[in-house]
Amino acid sequence: MEFEQVLRKRRMVREFDVNKQVPEKIIRKLLRNAHRAPSAGHTQVQEFVIVKNPKIKKKLREVAVDQEYVEEAPTLIVVCSNTSRSEKRYGRRGREFYSIIDGAFASMLILLTAVNERIGAGFVGAFEDDKVSEILKLPQYVKPIGIITLGYPKESEPDERFERIPIDDLIHYERW
Amino acid sequence: MEFEQVLRKRRMVREFDVNKQVPEKIIRKLLRNAHRAPSAGHTQVQEFVIVKNPKIKKKLREVAVDQEYVEEAPTLIVVCSNTSRSEKRYGRRGREFYSIIDGAFASMLILLTAVNERIGAGFVGAFEDDKVSEILKLPQYVKPIGIITLGYPKESEPDERFERIPIDDLIHYERW
Repeated sequence: MEFEQVLRKRRMVREFDVNKQVPEKIIRKLLRNAHRAPSAGHTQVQEFVIVKNPKIKKKLREVAVDQEYVEEAPTLIVVCSNTSRSEKRYGRRGREFYSIIDGAFASMLILLTAVNERIGAGFVGAFEDDKVSEILKLPQYVKPIGIITLGYPKESEPDERFERIPIDDLIHYERW
Repeated sequence: MEFEQVLRKRRMVREFDVNKQVPEKIIRKLLRNAHRAPSAGHTQVQEFVIVKNPKIKKKLREVAVDQEYVEEAPTLIVVCSNTSRSEKRYGRRGREFYSIIDGAFASMLILLTAVNERIGAGFVGAFEDDKVSEILKLPQYVKPIGIITLGYPKESEPDERFERIPIDDLIHYERW
């Protein structure tokens, strides 16, 4: 698909066809593209936990403000940042800033690639970090950044899109 | 350009042709696409400061670990998150987590659109937040997320790319 078309079509998908799995080939493609994400000082902190097990998805739903699509999505990619590769170099800024930026970069590449592969994807950032870490056995130096829900959308493109603040209200010249 | 081609061609550009301005039309395109970025609970925190003034670019360079391309790039887009729109709803997580995620989402859309528009772009996350805020007169509730350097690359595509950790070392199934 043309790049501009991918951007225009991207939206957060929250309702999935629970009976239709995402082909392995597509999951692999999402990960390959996420793997191209940049990272602070090329520390390559981004790592990925693929979750399909219904019990684990259910547990993740419970610690993600009970958002049901976390359980219903056939596949989850939990994007994490392994700060053991950045902490020594960047200290607190590595842990509390770059790790989030870099995880979000990889997440956005997954969200866009999903559009290009014609599947649905959503980004969930509302979760209890320590509980997600416990469920997925993340080491202490690994920070969960986002739970990406993946599957085939249950319904076609909605008629309405969110309204947005006019762009000119968000642009400033030379200073705020 | 095809989406996959944009992803493959994306790289951080650090050397710019200082004599060649980025056309307004392209800057506008970058901002329009950044404006499509998702945000936590559709709080639309992302705002943008366009900087072309050499004196301001010089000041920003000084507080961005003296990275010379911050001064040399013809145009900067400083991506900010206006937490006044998310703080009430999300408190600390809004300020310290979603604001960074959302700013990074918008930044990645700018970096990719730059490839599609055939200009060069780089992301700078290494800066002193409070000094950037002072230079750009950001209100206290506005957090600078990244300085995106924009211009025409001085040199063509480099022969070498960074080596990357093998993808299979970064993927985990069901748990870490």
